[in-house]
Amino acid sequence: MSKVAFIGGGSFGTALAILLAKKGDEVSVYDRDESVVNDINDNRTNNKYIKGLIIPNGVQAYSDLDEAIISADYIVFAIPSHVIRTMAKSLSGRIKPDVPIISIAKGIDPETDERLSVVIQRELPNPVVILSGPSHAEEVAANIPTTLVVTSRNMECAKEVQDLFMTTDFRVYTNEDIIGVEIGGAVKNIIALAAGIVDGMGYGDNTKAALMTRGMKEISRIGIALGGKAETFYGLTGMGDLIVTCTSMHSRNRRAGILIGEGKSLEETLKEVGMVVEGVKACKAFYELKEKIGVSMPITDVLYKALFLDKNPKECVRELMERNKKSET
Amino acid sequence: MSKVAFIGGGSFGTALAILLAKKGDEVSVYDRDESVVNDINDNRTNNKYIKGLIIPNGVQAYSDLDEAIISADYIVFAIPSHVIRTMAKSLSGRIKPDVPIISIAKGIDPETDERLSVVIQRELPNPVVILSGPSHAEEVAANIPTTLVVTSRNMECAKEVQDLFMTTDFRVYTNEDIIGVEIGGAVKNIIALAAGIVDGMGYGDNTKAALMTRGMKEISRIGIALGGKAETFYGLTGMGDLIVTCTSMHSRNRRAGILIGEGKSLEETLKEVGMVVEGVKACKAFYELKEKIGVSMPITDVLYKALFLDKNPKECVRELMERNKKSET
Repeated sequence: MSKVAFIGGGSFGTALAILLAKKGDEVSVYDRDESVVNDINDNRTNNKYIKGLIIPNGVQAYSDLDEAIISADYIVFAIPSHVIRTMAKSLSGRIKPDVPIISIAKGIDPETDERLSVVIQRELPNPVVILSGPSHAEEVAANIPTTLVVTSRNMECAKEVQDLFMTTDFRVYTNEDIIGVEIGGAVKNIIALAAGIVDGMGYGDNTKAALMTRGMKEISRIGIALGGKAETFYGLTGMGDLIVTCTSMHSRNRRAGILIGEGKSLEETLKEVGMVVEGVKACKAFYELKEKIGVSMPITDVLYKALFLDKNPKECVRELMERNKKSET
Repeated sequence: MSKVAFIGGGSFGTALAILLAKKGDEVSVYDRDESVVNDINDNRTNNKYIKGLIIPNGVQAYSDLDEAIISADYIVFAIPSHVIRTMAKSLSGRIKPDVPIISIAKGIDPETDERLSVVIQRELPNPVVILSGPSHAEEVAANIPTTLVVTSRNMECAKEVQDLFMTTDFRVYTNEDIIGVEIGGAVKNIIALAAGIVDGMGYGDNTKAALMTRGMKEISRIGIALGGKAETFYGLTGMGDLIVTCTSMHSRNRRAGILIGEGKSLEETLKEVGMVVEGVKACKAFYELKEKIGVSMPITDVLYKALFLDKNPKECVRELMERNKKSET
């Protein structure tokens, strides 16, 4: 039995907290929103983030961070990418240096374009493990068979985390390519947002499949330029996660894209989705990054224009489709 | 203006016939089913194969093969893979040797395991061009932007065919890797059938994304062993077509899988779908082929057991998910 502290009571964090509590681990959840904490402790539900789930007694929620992390064997960062640096900073000196930090966010740091494991490592000496893959929270909570990947600069620690989470229905594999896993997970949200726009505009499955195929090339192109391995991008954390994010209604990024494709503004869309849409942040960050390092990312270009330069999404997508290309390769 | 003869009045053939007629080409369609021929000529519809479409006057249907192919500049084989050899044989001596044959079927020859272009080439000296990619007929007919690939041992002829079909919404690219295009198109139907079973069993998006990711590896493994290029399998005719076939309700292979996953027998399923399910034939052919050449295809194995050895699909899928694997790569 381990004690596992979750920082952030969002949907995927909650699903993982339930999974571990059912395995017999002692689980604490910190959330800054007191209503979430009370909902978990008093009603055994977390209806703000993931409706209809019953949270076992083994999960205890806290609005005080120190109480939540006390004597934790593992700390899970279940918070959006843009607040990871602040949280890592605020934990500095408050936790033992050998407690593994497990990060489940998918994105890159908006200010420095650093991968999230690098951001955490700058602030904390602890081993950092990334857990990633095609895993909608709603399905994990429903015991639907799900496969994920753990990666770390410390693979011994990654294997510990593999054992921590592994169940019959929640299969965790190791992969040593931490760059590939983190970059794939971040960029796929950009493609999913674009795929949602294509859906929202009523384009159909042929168009979306073409977009996803090109998107996969885009992920692998920028990912390899940043030091990741091609086979990682075509694995669970790249292609697998791209597929689930582009095709499932559980995907926030896709849902945001659909609203934009239907004609809503970015502001209206973010308000309606009500949670962080990582693809919007990733689009901006990767647009700037690829301009710096000189990698071609046509879908990111088009999305950037549609989101931040007020171009018409329909015209942008059409432009993408009609590029004057004759050969596939 | 060209004269294009379609052999077979199925859904995709009909969608392409309409596309060419709208471009101003003279189009004939041969079908052995007289009711289809009459429906096209008398009612301007083809409700047996693709409901609700209006077929332009530029399309003329025939139940006599010779009448349909007379003075054709191009002949399109729009028939299932298992009848291609017979049709190619029967055309021998009846057509000029320089008329390009365009094949749109996706499969391999069930008797010899040969690619369809090889099968046609054995019987006819004509140039053979393969047209493939993520392209459900219903969406092509609705002018939804679609991207495809042409390939051939005669790339000059492939480029002619590219020009023949190209429109703003129907984008055709060339690819010289004929082996990769044909094998990817055939094997993806096996994976789509398995994905349908996963859907029919109620497994959800996480499971299906994992299956598709592994399926992609399986396509690329057998494809490379047979002489195709990795980049083709991760392009439109491999990954793109895999995505559309595994996620769209327009896909016959997926629909057949769903019925099997819901508990129907293979016989009941084929009866209910009412059209040829290429994935069933491909599963048998590739199971035998990979046994001969020694390539690992775990999804094809599992599907073969479920379809032909009366194993319980649910147990087969669970077996696949629980393989005792620790590392992703």
